[in-house]
Amino acid sequence: MLRRMSEIRALTFDVFGTVVDWRSSVIRHCEAFGREHRLAADWGAFVDDWRYDGYMGGIGRVIRGEAPFTTADNLHRAKLGALAAAAGWKGVSEIDLDALNHAWHLLDPWPDAVAGLERLRSRFVVSTLSNGNLSLLVDMARHAGLHWDAVLSADVTGAFKPDPLCYQAGARFLGLQPDQVMMVAAHKGDLKAAQKAGLKAAFVPRPLEAGPNRDVDLSPDPAFQYMASDFHALADQLGCP
Amino acid sequence: MLRRMSEIRALTFDVFGTVVDWRSSVIRHCEAFGREHRLAADWGAFVDDWRYDGYMGGIGRVIRGEAPFTTADNLHRAKLGALAAAAGWKGVSEIDLDALNHAWHLLDPWPDAVAGLERLRSRFVVSTLSNGNLSLLVDMARHAGLHWDAVLSADVTGAFKPDPLCYQAGARFLGLQPDQVMMVAAHKGDLKAAQKAGLKAAFVPRPLEAGPNRDVDLSPDPAFQYMASDFHALADQLGCP
Repeated sequence: MLRRMSEIRALTFDVFGTVVDWRSSVIRHCEAFGREHRLAADWGAFVDDWRYDGYMGGIGRVIRGEAPFTTADNLHRAKLGALAAAAGWKGVSEIDLDALNHAWHLLDPWPDAVAGLERLRSRFVVSTLSNGNLSLLVDMARHAGLHWDAVLSADVTGAFKPDPLCYQAGARFLGLQPDQVMMVAAHKGDLKAAQKAGLKAAFVPRPLEAGPNRDVDLSPDPAFQYMASDFHALADQLGCP
Repeated sequence: MLRRMSEIRALTFDVFGTVVDWRSSVIRHCEAFGREHRLAADWGAFVDDWRYDGYMGGIGRVIRGEAPFTTADNLHRAKLGALAAAAGWKGVSEIDLDALNHAWHLLDPWPDAVAGLERLRSRFVVSTLSNGNLSLLVDMARHAGLHWDAVLSADVTGAFKPDPLCYQAGARFLGLQPDQVMMVAAHKGDLKAAQKAGLKAAFVPRPLEAGPNRDVDLSPDPAFQYMASDFHALADQLGCP
Protein backbone atom coordinates (compact mmCIF):
# COMPACT_ATOMS: atom_id res chain seq x y z
CA MET A 1 0.00 0.00 0.00
CA LEU A 2 1.40 3.36 -1.01
CA ARG A 3 0.54 4.89 2.33
CA ARG A 4 2.96 2.58 4.10
CA MET A 5 5.58 2.75 1.37
CA SER A 6 5.79 6.50 1.52
CA GLU A 7 5.13 6.70 5.26
CA ILE A 8 3.19 9.87 4.59
CA ARG A 9 0.17 9.96 6.88
CA ALA A 10 -0.99 13.57 6.61
CA LEU A 11 -0.93 16.37 4.07
CA THR A 12 -0.76 19.93 5.34
CA PHE A 13 -1.80 22.62 2.91
CA ASP A 14 -0.78 26.15 2.37
CA VAL A 15 -4.08 27.89 1.65
CA PHE A 16 -3.72 31.40 0.13
CA GLY A 17 -2.75 30.78 -3.49
CA THR A 18 -2.45 27.00 -3.16
CA VAL A 19 -6.08 26.14 -2.37
CA VAL A 20 -7.88 29.41 -3.06
CA ASP A 21 -7.55 32.18 -5.62
CA TRP A 22 -7.17 35.05 -3.16
CA ARG A 23 -6.39 37.73 -5.73
CA SER A 24 -9.45 37.42 -8.00
CA SER A 25 -11.70 36.89 -4.97
CA VAL A 26 -10.55 39.98 -3.09
CA ILE A 27 -10.52 42.14 -6.22
CA ARG A 28 -14.16 41.19 -6.77
CA HIS A 29 -15.06 42.16 -3.19
CA CYS A 30 -13.18 45.45 -3.61
CA GLU A 31 -14.97 46.25 -6.86
CA ALA A 32 -18.34 45.74 -5.16
CA PHE A 33 -17.18 47.86 -2.24
CA GLY A 34 -16.07 50.57 -4.69
CA ARG A 35 -19.44 50.62 -6.42
CA GLU A 36 -21.27 50.80 -3.08
CA HIS A 37 -19.12 53.64 -1.73
CA ARG A 38 -18.46 55.37 -5.08
CA LEU A 39 -14.72 54.86 -4.91
CA ALA A 40 -12.51 54.30 -7.91
CA ALA A 41 -9.12 52.59 -7.77
CA ASP A 42 -6.84 50.20 -9.61
CA TRP A 43 -8.17 47.35 -7.48
CA GLY A 44 -5.58 44.87 -8.72
CA ALA A 45 -2.73 47.10 -7.54
CA PHE A 46 -4.66 47.87 -4.35
CA VAL A 47 -5.06 44.18 -3.52
CA ASP A 48 -1.42 43.43 -4.37
CA ASP A 49 -0.28 46.18 -2.01
CA TRP A 50 -2.71 44.93 0.67
CA ARG A 51 -1.38 41.40 0.31
CA TYR A 52 2.32 41.74 -0.38
CA ASP A 53 3.17 44.83 1.65
CA GLY A 54 0.50 44.59 4.35
CA TYR A 55 0.17 40.89 5.05
CA MET A 56 3.48 39.43 3.93
CA GLY A 57 5.42 42.46 5.07
CA GLY A 58 3.72 42.22 8.45
CA ILE A 59 4.59 38.54 8.80
CA GLY A 60 8.19 39.35 7.97
CA ARG A 61 8.32 41.91 10.80
CA VAL A 62 6.92 39.37 13.27
CA ILE A 63 9.40 36.70 12.17
CA ARG A 64 12.33 39.13 12.45
CA GLY A 65 11.19 40.06 15.95
CA GLU A 66 10.38 43.66 14.99
CA ALA A 67 6.68 43.32 15.86
CA PRO A 68 4.72 41.18 18.32
CA PHE A 69 2.86 38.08 17.13
CA THR A 70 -0.59 38.87 15.76
CA THR A 71 -3.19 37.41 13.41
CA ALA A 72 -3.69 37.60 9.66
CA ASP A 73 -6.97 39.44 10.32
CA ASN A 74 -5.13 42.11 12.28
CA LEU A 75 -2.38 42.47 9.67
CA HIS A 76 -4.97 42.79 6.89
CA ARG A 77 -7.02 45.27 8.89
CA ALA A 78 -4.07 47.50 9.80
CA LYS A 79 -2.94 47.71 6.18
CA LEU A 80 -6.48 48.37 4.98
CA GLY A 81 -6.75 51.31 7.38
CA ALA A 82 -3.49 52.70 6.02
CA LEU A 83 -4.59 52.21 2.40
CA ALA A 84 -7.92 53.91 3.07
CA ALA A 85 -6.21 56.85 4.77
CA ALA A 86 -3.64 57.20 1.97
CA ALA A 87 -6.40 57.17 -0.65
CA GLY A 88 -8.39 59.76 1.30
CA TRP A 89 -11.61 57.72 1.21
CA LYS A 90 -14.61 59.76 2.36
CA GLY A 91 -17.73 58.41 4.03
CA VAL A 92 -16.21 55.03 4.80
CA SER A 93 -16.56 54.04 8.45
CA GLU A 94 -14.38 51.74 10.49
CA ILE A 95 -17.26 49.24 10.38
CA ASP A 96 -17.25 49.42 6.58
CA LEU A 97 -13.54 48.64 6.62
CA ASP A 98 -14.13 45.71 9.00
CA ALA A 99 -16.64 44.34 6.51
CA LEU A 100 -14.23 44.74 3.58
CA ASN A 101 -11.48 43.08 5.61
CA HIS A 102 -13.78 40.06 5.92
CA ALA A 103 -13.27 39.49 2.16
CA TRP A 104 -10.19 37.46 3.13
CA HIS A 105 -12.52 34.95 4.87
CA LEU A 106 -14.52 34.35 1.69
CA LEU A 107 -12.02 33.33 -0.96
CA ASP A 108 -13.00 31.07 -3.83
CA PRO A 109 -11.23 27.74 -4.37
CA TRP A 110 -9.28 26.83 -7.50
CA PRO A 111 -11.51 24.66 -9.73
CA ASP A 112 -9.81 21.39 -8.71
CA ALA A 113 -9.48 22.15 -5.01
CA VAL A 114 -12.70 20.82 -3.45
CA ALA A 115 -12.90 17.54 -5.36
CA GLY A 116 -9.15 16.98 -5.37
CA LEU A 117 -8.96 17.52 -1.64
CA GLU A 118 -11.73 15.00 -1.08
CA ARG A 119 -9.78 12.41 -3.07
CA LEU A 120 -6.65 13.10 -1.04
CA ARG A 121 -8.69 12.90 2.19
CA SER A 122 -9.70 9.34 1.30
CA ARG A 123 -6.15 8.19 2.03
CA PHE A 124 -4.50 10.92 4.10
CA VAL A 125 -5.38 13.20 6.95
CA VAL A 126 -5.74 16.64 5.33
CA SER A 127 -5.19 19.81 7.27
CA THR A 128 -4.52 23.44 6.61
CA LEU A 129 -1.15 24.79 7.76
CA SER A 130 -1.68 28.42 6.96
CA ASN A 131 -0.56 31.81 8.15
CA GLY A 132 -4.24 32.73 8.20
CA ASN A 133 -6.00 32.59 11.54
CA LEU A 134 -8.31 29.75 12.46
CA SER A 135 -11.57 31.71 12.21
CA LEU A 136 -10.60 33.00 8.75
CA LEU A 137 -9.86 29.47 7.59
CA VAL A 138 -13.09 28.10 9.08
CA ASP A 139 -15.20 30.77 7.35
CA MET A 140 -13.35 30.11 4.10
CA ALA A 141 -13.87 26.34 4.29
CA ARG A 142 -17.61 26.84 4.87
CA HIS A 143 -17.79 29.37 2.02
CA ALA A 144 -15.79 27.25 -0.43
CA GLY A 145 -17.05 23.80 0.60
CA LEU A 146 -13.58 22.58 1.63
CA HIS A 147 -13.61 19.63 4.01
CA TRP A 148 -10.56 19.67 6.27
CA ASP A 149 -9.88 17.04 8.90
CA ALA A 150 -8.20 19.75 10.97
CA VAL A 151 -7.63 23.47 10.70
CA LEU A 152 -4.09 24.34 11.76
CA SER A 153 -3.02 27.94 11.56
CA ALA A 154 -0.44 30.41 12.78
CA ASP A 155 -2.57 31.36 15.78
CA VAL A 156 -2.89 27.69 16.77
CA THR A 157 0.83 26.92 16.36
CA GLY A 158 1.91 30.29 17.75
CA ALA A 159 4.27 30.94 14.84
CA PHE A 160 4.10 32.09 11.23
CA LYS A 161 5.57 30.08 8.40
CA PRO A 162 8.45 29.88 7.48
CA ASP A 163 9.39 29.67 11.18
CA PRO A 164 10.23 25.98 11.72
CA LEU A 165 8.17 26.05 14.92
CA CYS A 166 5.01 26.36 12.83
CA TYR A 167 5.70 23.17 10.83
CA GLN A 168 6.90 21.23 13.86
CA ALA A 169 3.87 22.20 15.93
CA GLY A 170 1.64 21.18 13.03
CA ALA A 171 3.14 17.68 12.98
CA ARG A 172 2.98 17.45 16.78
CA PHE A 173 -0.73 18.35 16.87
CA LEU A 174 -1.36 15.67 14.24
CA GLY A 175 0.42 13.14 16.45
CA LEU A 176 3.04 12.46 13.77
CA GLN A 177 6.76 12.68 13.22
CA PRO A 178 7.63 15.54 10.83
CA ASP A 179 8.61 13.10 8.05
CA GLN A 180 5.14 11.52 8.18
CA VAL A 181 3.71 14.86 7.06
CA MET A 182 3.89 16.37 3.58
CA MET A 183 3.45 20.09 3.03
CA VAL A 184 1.51 20.96 -0.14
CA ALA A 185 2.11 24.47 -1.45
CA ALA A 186 2.38 26.61 -4.54
CA HIS A 187 5.36 28.45 -3.05
CA LYS A 188 8.91 27.10 -2.98
CA GLY A 189 9.90 29.10 0.08
CA ASP A 190 7.16 27.47 2.12
CA LEU A 191 8.18 24.00 0.91
CA LYS A 192 11.89 24.51 1.52
CA ALA A 193 11.17 25.70 5.06
CA ALA A 194 8.89 22.70 5.61
CA GLN A 195 11.65 20.35 4.45
CA LYS A 196 14.17 22.06 6.71
CA ALA A 197 11.75 21.33 9.58
CA GLY A 198 11.67 17.66 8.57
CA LEU A 199 8.47 17.50 6.50
CA LYS A 200 8.15 16.22 2.96
CA ALA A 201 7.09 18.59 0.18
CA ALA A 202 4.68 18.59 -2.75
CA PHE A 203 4.88 21.50 -5.18
CA VAL A 204 1.59 22.45 -6.85
CA PRO A 205 2.35 25.61 -8.81
CA ARG A 206 -0.57 27.95 -9.46
CA PRO A 207 0.33 30.03 -12.52
CA LEU A 208 -2.71 32.30 -12.14
CA GLU A 209 -2.16 33.21 -8.49
CA ALA A 210 -0.38 36.53 -8.82
CA GLY A 211 -2.20 38.17 -11.67
CA PRO A 212 -0.59 39.73 -14.73
CA ASN A 213 2.00 41.94 -13.03
CA ARG A 214 4.11 39.45 -11.11
CA ASP A 215 6.20 36.51 -12.14
CA VAL A 216 5.39 33.16 -10.57
CA ASP A 217 8.16 30.56 -10.25
CA LEU A 218 6.72 27.45 -11.90
CA SER A 219 9.98 25.63 -12.56
CA PRO A 220 10.40 22.10 -11.20
CA ASP A 221 12.78 21.51 -8.29
CA PRO A 222 14.03 17.95 -7.77
CA ALA A 223 14.40 18.62 -4.05
CA PHE A 224 10.62 18.27 -3.66
CA GLN A 225 9.18 14.74 -3.31
CA TYR A 226 6.20 15.49 -5.56
CA MET A 227 5.23 18.05 -8.18
CA ALA A 228 1.73 18.17 -9.63
CA SER A 229 -0.29 20.53 -11.78
CA ASP A 230 -3.31 20.42 -9.45
CA PHE A 231 -4.83 18.40 -6.58
CA HIS A 232 -6.26 15.75 -8.89
CA ALA A 233 -2.82 15.14 -10.40
CA LEU A 234 -1.37 14.93 -6.89
CA ALA A 235 -4.09 12.45 -5.90
CA ASP A 236 -3.22 10.37 -8.96
CA GLN A 237 0.47 10.34 -8.06
CA LEU A 238 -0.32 9.36 -4.46
CA GLY A 239 -2.58 6.51 -5.55
CA CYS A 240 -5.82 7.99 -4.22
CA PRO A 241 -9.02 6.60 -5.73
CA MET B 1 -33.62 34.93 11.97
CA LEU B 2 -32.89 32.86 15.01
CA ARG B 3 -29.15 33.14 14.52
CA ARG B 4 -29.30 36.89 15.05
CA MET B 5 -31.89 36.68 17.79
CA SER B 6 -29.81 34.34 19.87
CA GLU B 7 -26.47 35.80 18.78
CA ILE B 8 -25.06 32.31 18.90
CA ARG B 9 -22.59 31.86 16.05
CA ALA B 10 -20.77 28.68 17.00
CA LEU B 11 -21.46 25.48 18.90
CA THR B 12 -18.58 23.82 20.69
CA PHE B 13 -19.07 20.19 21.60
CA ASP B 14 -17.86 18.04 24.38
CA VAL B 15 -17.02 14.78 22.63
CA PHE B 16 -16.54 11.80 24.99
CA GLY B 17 -20.05 10.83 26.04
CA THR B 18 -21.78 13.73 24.28
CA VAL B 19 -20.97 12.84 20.66
CA VAL B 20 -19.57 9.33 20.96
CA ASP B 21 -20.35 6.28 23.08
CA TRP B 22 -16.85 5.82 24.49
CA ARG B 23 -17.76 3.06 26.96
CA SER B 24 -19.32 0.52 24.57
CA SER B 25 -16.69 1.26 21.94
CA VAL B 26 -13.69 0.75 24.22
CA ILE B 27 -15.21 -2.32 25.85
CA ARG B 28 -15.57 -3.85 22.38
CA HIS B 29 -11.91 -3.11 21.58
CA CYS B 30 -10.87 -4.60 24.95
CA GLU B 31 -12.89 -7.76 24.35
CA ALA B 32 -11.17 -8.27 20.98
CA PHE B 33 -7.81 -7.59 22.62
CA GLY B 34 -8.63 -10.12 25.34
CA ARG B 35 -9.53 -12.80 22.79
CA GLU B 36 -6.33 -12.12 20.84
CA HIS B 37 -4.07 -12.26 23.90
CA ARG B 38 -6.10 -14.83 25.90
CA LEU B 39 -6.82 -12.48 28.73
CA ALA B 40 -10.01 -12.50 30.78
CA ALA B 41 -11.33 -9.52 32.70
CA ASP B 42 -14.47 -7.64 33.66
CA TRP B 43 -13.96 -5.31 30.73
CA GLY B 44 -16.71 -2.93 31.81
CA ALA B 45 -15.03 -2.37 35.18
CA PHE B 46 -11.63 -2.23 33.44
CA VAL B 47 -12.77 0.51 31.08
CA ASP B 48 -14.48 2.45 33.87
CA ASP B 49 -11.25 2.41 35.88
CA TRP B 50 -9.26 3.40 32.78
CA ARG B 51 -11.60 6.30 32.12
CA TYR B 52 -12.61 7.62 35.51
CA ASP B 53 -9.44 7.03 37.50
CA GLY B 54 -6.86 7.22 34.73
CA TYR B 55 -8.13 9.91 32.42
CA MET B 56 -10.37 12.04 34.61
CA GLY B 57 -8.16 11.58 37.64
CA GLY B 58 -5.16 12.62 35.56
CA ILE B 59 -6.92 15.76 34.31
CA GLY B 60 -7.79 16.63 37.90
CA ARG B 61 -4.12 16.43 38.89
CA VAL B 62 -3.13 18.72 36.01
CA ILE B 63 -5.83 21.25 36.87
CA ARG B 64 -4.83 21.25 40.55
CA GLY B 65 -1.20 21.86 39.54
CA GLU B 66 -0.02 18.50 40.87
CA ALA B 67 1.15 17.26 37.45
CA PRO B 68 2.42 18.98 34.31
CA PHE B 69 0.12 19.50 31.32
CA THR B 70 -0.06 16.47 29.04
CA THR B 71 -2.36 14.88 26.49
CA ALA B 72 -5.33 12.54 26.75
CA ASP B 73 -3.29 9.95 24.84
CA ASN B 74 -0.56 10.11 27.48
CA LEU B 75 -3.03 9.91 30.37
CA HIS B 76 -4.77 6.92 28.81
CA ARG B 77 -1.46 5.21 28.06
CA ALA B 78 -0.04 5.68 31.55
CA LYS B 79 -3.15 4.25 33.17
CA LEU B 80 -3.24 1.34 30.73
CA GLY B 81 0.34 0.45 31.65
CA ALA B 82 -0.61 0.50 35.32
CA LEU B 83 -3.72 -1.61 34.73
CA ALA B 84 -1.73 -4.17 32.70
CA ALA B 85 0.92 -4.38 35.41
CA ALA B 86 -1.66 -4.73 38.17
CA ALA B 87 -3.41 -7.51 36.27
CA GLY B 88 -0.11 -9.29 35.62
CA TRP B 89 -0.70 -9.61 31.87
CA LYS B 90 1.82 -11.95 30.23
CA GLY B 91 3.02 -11.79 26.65
CA VAL B 92 1.65 -8.30 26.05
CA SER B 93 4.26 -5.91 24.68
CA GLU B 94 4.42 -2.13 24.99
CA ILE B 95 3.51 -1.97 21.30
CA ASP B 96 0.42 -4.10 21.99
CA LEU B 97 -0.57 -1.62 24.69
CA ASP B 98 0.01 1.30 22.31
CA ALA B 99 -2.37 -0.38 19.87
CA LEU B 100 -5.02 -0.92 22.55
CA ASN B 101 -4.63 2.69 23.68
CA HIS B 102 -5.56 3.70 20.15
CA ALA B 103 -9.09 2.40 20.85
CA TRP B 104 -9.84 5.88 22.22
CA HIS B 105 -9.28 7.29 18.70
CA LEU B 106 -11.94 5.00 17.20
CA LEU B 107 -15.10 5.62 19.18
CA ASP B 108 -18.52 5.14 17.64
CA PRO B 109 -20.99 8.04 17.49
CA TRP B 110 -24.40 8.05 19.14
CA PRO B 111 -27.04 7.20 16.49
CA ASP B 112 -28.16 10.84 16.07
CA ALA B 113 -24.70 12.41 16.15
CA VAL B 114 -23.55 12.46 12.52
CA ALA B 115 -26.82 13.59 10.93
CA GLY B 116 -27.74 15.91 13.80
CA LEU B 117 -24.35 17.59 13.66
CA GLU B 118 -24.72 18.14 9.93
CA ARG B 119 -28.06 19.87 10.53
CA LEU B 120 -26.50 22.09 13.20
CA ARG B 121 -23.57 22.85 10.87
CA SER B 122 -26.00 24.28 8.31
CA ARG B 123 -26.55 27.26 10.59
CA PHE B 124 -23.66 27.36 13.06
CA VAL B 125 -19.94 26.83 13.06
CA VAL B 126 -19.48 23.48 14.80
CA SER B 127 -16.29 22.61 16.62
CA THR B 128 -15.08 20.14 19.17
CA LEU B 129 -13.99 21.57 22.52
CA SER B 130 -12.68 18.41 24.08
CA ASN B 131 -10.11 17.30 26.60
CA GLY B 132 -8.99 14.80 23.98
CA ASN B 133 -5.96 15.73 21.90
CA LEU B 134 -6.27 16.94 18.34
CA SER B 135 -4.94 13.78 16.66
CA LEU B 136 -7.33 11.61 18.69
CA LEU B 137 -10.27 13.80 17.65
CA VAL B 138 -9.20 13.82 13.99
CA ASP B 139 -8.92 10.03 13.89
CA MET B 140 -12.30 9.74 15.61
CA ALA B 141 -14.00 12.12 13.18
CA ARG B 142 -12.65 10.15 10.21
CA HIS B 143 -13.71 6.86 11.81
CA ALA B 144 -17.19 8.07 12.78
CA GLY B 145 -17.90 10.31 9.78
CA LEU B 146 -18.23 13.44 11.89
CA HIS B 147 -17.76 16.68 9.95
CA TRP B 148 -16.32 19.40 12.19
CA ASP B 149 -15.59 22.92 10.99
CA ALA B 150 -12.73 23.02 13.47
CA VAL B 151 -11.12 20.64 15.93
CA LEU B 152 -10.37 22.44 19.19
CA SER B 153 -8.84 20.44 21.98
CA ALA B 154 -6.96 20.72 25.24
CA ASP B 155 -3.59 20.54 23.47
CA VAL B 156 -4.63 23.39 21.15
CA THR B 157 -5.98 25.62 23.93
CA GLY B 158 -3.24 24.61 26.37
CA ALA B 159 -5.73 23.87 29.16
CA PHE B 160 -8.14 21.14 30.17
CA LYS B 161 -11.80 21.80 30.81
CA PRO B 162 -13.14 22.95 33.25
CA ASP B 163 -10.30 25.48 33.36
CA PRO B 164 -11.90 28.73 32.07
CA LEU B 165 -8.83 29.27 29.87
CA CYS B 166 -9.91 26.33 27.70
CA TYR B 167 -13.35 27.81 26.93
CA GLN B 168 -12.00 31.33 26.47
CA ALA B 169 -9.27 30.17 24.10
CA GLY B 170 -11.87 28.21 22.15
CA ALA B 171 -13.97 31.33 21.60
CA ARG B 172 -10.88 33.39 20.74
CA PHE B 173 -9.71 30.89 18.08
CA LEU B 174 -13.21 31.02 16.57
CA GLY B 175 -12.96 34.82 16.40
CA LEU B 176 -15.98 35.23 18.67
CA GLN B 177 -16.95 36.71 22.00
CA PRO B 178 -17.61 33.99 24.59
CA ASP B 179 -21.37 34.71 24.59
CA GLN B 180 -21.51 34.05 20.83
CA VAL B 181 -20.49 30.46 21.54
CA MET B 182 -22.67 27.73 23.03
CA MET B 183 -21.13 24.69 24.68
CA VAL B 184 -23.02 21.45 23.99
CA ALA B 185 -22.41 18.70 26.53
CA ALA B 186 -23.94 15.77 28.36
CA HIS B 187 -22.22 16.84 31.58
CA LYS B 188 -23.44 19.62 33.84
CA GLY B 189 -19.99 20.40 35.25
CA ASP B 190 -18.68 21.13 31.76
CA LEU B 191 -21.66 23.37 31.01
CA LYS B 192 -21.49 25.27 34.29
CA ALA B 193 -17.79 25.94 33.76
CA ALA B 194 -18.51 27.08 30.19
CA GLN B 195 -21.15 29.50 31.47
CA LYS B 196 -18.77 30.81 34.11
CA ALA B 197 -16.34 31.55 31.26
CA GLY B 198 -19.08 33.48 29.44
CA LEU B 199 -20.36 30.85 26.99
CA LYS B 200 -23.95 29.71 26.60
CA ALA B 201 -24.88 26.11 27.40
CA ALA B 202 -26.97 23.34 25.82
CA PHE B 203 -27.54 20.20 27.89
CA VAL B 204 -27.90 16.98 25.89
CA PRO B 205 -28.03 14.20 28.47
CA ARG B 206 -26.89 10.77 27.35
CA PRO B 207 -28.53 8.24 29.66
CA LEU B 208 -26.56 5.32 28.23
CA GLU B 209 -23.10 6.88 28.58
CA ALA B 210 -21.95 5.38 31.85
CA GLY B 211 -23.19 1.82 31.63
CA PRO B 212 -25.22 0.00 34.27
CA ASN B 213 -23.06 0.74 37.32
CA ARG B 214 -23.09 4.52 37.51
CA ASP B 215 -25.83 7.05 37.89
CA VAL B 216 -26.10 9.74 35.22
CA ASP B 217 -27.62 13.11 36.14
CA LEU B 218 -30.39 13.61 33.57
CA SER B 219 -32.43 16.20 35.47
CA PRO B 220 -33.17 19.53 33.78
CA ASP B 221 -31.43 22.67 35.01
CA PRO B 222 -33.05 26.01 34.16
CA ALA B 223 -29.63 27.68 34.21
CA PHE B 224 -28.86 26.16 30.79
CA GLN B 225 -30.15 28.00 27.70
CA TYR B 226 -31.17 24.77 25.94
CA MET B 227 -31.88 21.18 26.87
CA ALA B 228 -32.47 18.51 24.22
CA SER B 229 -32.72 14.75 24.09
CA ASP B 230 -30.32 14.48 21.13
CA PHE B 231 -28.72 16.56 18.36
CA HIS B 232 -31.81 16.42 16.14
CA ALA B 233 -33.94 17.82 18.95
CA LEU B 234 -31.34 20.54 19.50
CA ALA B 235 -31.34 21.33 15.77
CA ASP B 236 -35.15 21.61 15.90
CA GLN B 237 -35.00 24.01 18.85
CA LEU B 238 -32.35 26.13 17.11
CA GLY B 239 -34.38 26.33 13.89
CA CYS B 240 -31.96 24.33 11.74
CA PRO B 241 -33.44 22.86 8.56
